Amino acid sequence: MMSTAMNAVGVESQSVSIQPPERFLFGPGPTQVDPRVYSAMSKPIVGHLDPYFFKVNENVVRMLRTVFGTKSDLTFVISGTGSAGMEAAISNFVEPGDKVAVFANGYFCDRMAEMAKRQGGEVVRLEKPWGEVFDDADAAQLIKRERPQVVMYVTAETSTGAFQQGKAICAAAHEVGAIVIADCVTSLGAMPVQIDETGIDVAYSCTQKGLSCPPGLAPLTVSARAVQKLDARKTANESWYFDLKLLKDYYLNSHRYHHTAPISMFYGLHEALTLIEEEGAENRWERHHRAQREFVKGIEALGLKMLVPEAHRIWNLNTPCIPEGVDDVKVRRVLMEEHGIEIMGGFGPLAGKVFRVGIMGPLATEEGVKFFLGAFEKALKAGGYKG
Amino acid sequence: MMSTAMNAVGVESQSVSIQPPERFLFGPGPTQVDPRVYSAMSKPIVGHLDPYFFKVNENVVRMLRTVFGTKSDLTFVISGTGSAGMEAAISNFVEPGDKVAVFANGYFCDRMAEMAKRQGGEVVRLEKPWGEVFDDADAAQLIKRERPQVVMYVTAETSTGAFQQGKAICAAAHEVGAIVIADCVTSLGAMPVQIDETGIDVAYSCTQKGLSCPPGLAPLTVSARAVQKLDARKTANESWYFDLKLLKDYYLNSHRYHHTAPISMFYGLHEALTLIEEEGAENRWERHHRAQREFVKGIEALGLKMLVPEAHRIWNLNTPCIPEGVDDVKVRRVLMEEHGIEIMGGFGPLAGKVFRVGIMGPLATEEGVKFFLGAFEKALKAGGYKG
Repeated sequence: MMSTAMNAVGVESQSVSIQPPERFLFGPGPTQVDPRVYSAMSKPIVGHLDPYFFKVNENVVRMLRTVFGTKSDLTFVISGTGSAGMEAAISNFVEPGDKVAVFANGYFCDRMAEMAKRQGGEVVRLEKPWGEVFDDADAAQLIKRERPQVVMYVTAETSTGAFQQGKAICAAAHEVGAIVIADCVTSLGAMPVQIDETGIDVAYSCTQKGLSCPPGLAPLTVSARAVQKLDARKTANESWYFDLKLLKDYYLNSHRYHHTAPISMFYGLHEALTLIEEEGAENRWERHHRAQREFVKGIEALGLKMLVPEAHRIWNLNTPCIPEGVDDVKVRRVLMEEHGIEIMGGFGPLAGKVFRVGIMGPLATEEGVKFFLGAFEKALKAGGYKG
Repeated sequence: MMSTAMNAVGVESQSVSIQPPERFLFGPGPTQVDPRVYSAMSKPIVGHLDPYFFKVNENVVRMLRTVFGTKSDLTFVISGTGSAGMEAAISNFVEPGDKVAVFANGYFCDRMAEMAKRQGGEVVRLEKPWGEVFDDADAAQLIKRERPQVVMYVTAETSTGAFQQGKAICAAAHEVGAIVIADCVTSLGAMPVQIDETGIDVAYSCTQKGLSCPPGLAPLTVSARAVQKLDARKTANESWYFDLKLLKDYYLNSHRYHHTAPISMFYGLHEALTLIEEEGAENRWERHHRAQREFVKGIEALGLKMLVPEAHRIWNLNTPCIPEGVDDVKVRRVLMEEHGIEIMGGFGPLAGKVFRVGIMGPLATEEGVKFFLGAFEKALKAGGYKG
């Protein structure tokens, strides 16, 4: 009886209680997942102290270093979603009383600022309208004036579609002895983030966007400079769950028990990263960039404009403007109900102004774009578009 | 091309990078998972704001209320593992300056105390040796003397195998106006915890023990009394990720975006709870109790003693004492290498003194116990046991 049947996979799939409607995930995330990732996630778990688990983790860390573009060994996976990665970064590296400079041009910078405040950081902000980016002079000016301990920015601002270059920010920060925390939630896996070359000290991401895996984990990488700041902390991280000093022991050093890692999610991430390794990270980034150019060509042929100028666009998340007189809620409803396609609308200052369309992972192909545009044209017309 | 193939499941399972060794998980957790749960987890994800996801969450909450034994609508699932549930409970309900009384008789009470301290709580402890429990007089004495704002205890102490009754603790706490946080990490799903009847205000658990699901989520339930304390907080929770005020809006009220919930893990938990509903929670609890009696009979027939007296045993986690002269590391190695069976040893004051054996979920049957005992006897002999 205690045969391998106990660990059988592939039970009659119709008999389970979960029968989701079919969706094509063209939103900002979660995005479409390769069937191989689901297959890996359905493999029987081992224990969280099993040598097999640590082998899986070791491979995950190695493959993450490639997509992050870093040589840092201090690459972890946080057992929570992308926002847990943000909180892990901020709770470890913002100490009460630290001055924290935030480049604020979208929703997720505001979330970083909110978290830094809750950690007792003194937040100073440089503002730009949503959809714009900061140039090198802005970066230098804010940082030289404020001389913060921590600088924070978002690489790919999911709320606007704009990509923020980081080299000038990092150079100015390091000149005043600050470390830089960068949000790579939407960029990682779909476009180059080049942590080491850019000079980022702490970067975090999620699994459900550029990495094409279901949500549930948050990759995080940390520079030696940031570790020095961590080691010099005078207070313990208020969070035990996200305390990198403890996580470092569990994952990278003695394997001393901390928490029970979500094994199945690690299996999924391992497979998602293996798919990237097989394709080649640079080929994958280029594929996303190509799919975006196809997408924009189609969008402009329909007579729509993009919010963000070409040079500042995120490669995998697009914000076409909603044409005058179009009912965007109806467009999204028609896409969902008639085509099973999920996209999102804008929010905050961009509510009613843009659609947010992710062209990522297995959908970032010529066919994927064509499929989307065909349905989108119909939905736009249903929403009152006369163009 | 954009056919249902994009969401196909059941790709050739041999072709994925994850090929785990076969394990029978007889440790304290994670424990064996029913194949139907894996099948549910491999279903294609929908978005975190998709009506289908909220329907899944609604069912999960309904079924969790049954296993928790509560009528409270304020039942959440935290997007992290059991320790994230602990941190969510403590960070929301221990405010800086609160006096926190901890019943300390094992490892996880110490973890609760550590988290409460990090939240700025003033911790007072009542100590017992690991493996012992507190009686009604102990409970009343500590609480009446200290008059705390928060009282914390562990129902099923995974490090010792002892189950702590909670009625006297809760009654005394409520008399002085305190709320009670109870750790149900190991108990939930495998034995009755009866939150409402006991008087517990905040209870959290994990998915990978009594619920027989992979790790990755933390069920949490909150009483109306505890919500009053939350609403009266003078400071914001330092944690944004675990802030129940925000999570309540996302899950239970307006469905306002907070974070991207780990959809696949919700699918798995939904199926694990459906399995419990099909069996009947009380039948399931009784099955675990029966399996434990079988287990203890077998252990005593081998000449071993149990650490915890019968009346205070957790039903699904056993701590047989290691006989004199037996090399427990070797016993565990033989179990793992020759039988694919994982158990754990004791640690802290119980290091080298007990084995920790979980008889849970699909393994909590007569056949499961027999299979374990057969292998255990051989491993004990290989470890030098002459009994």
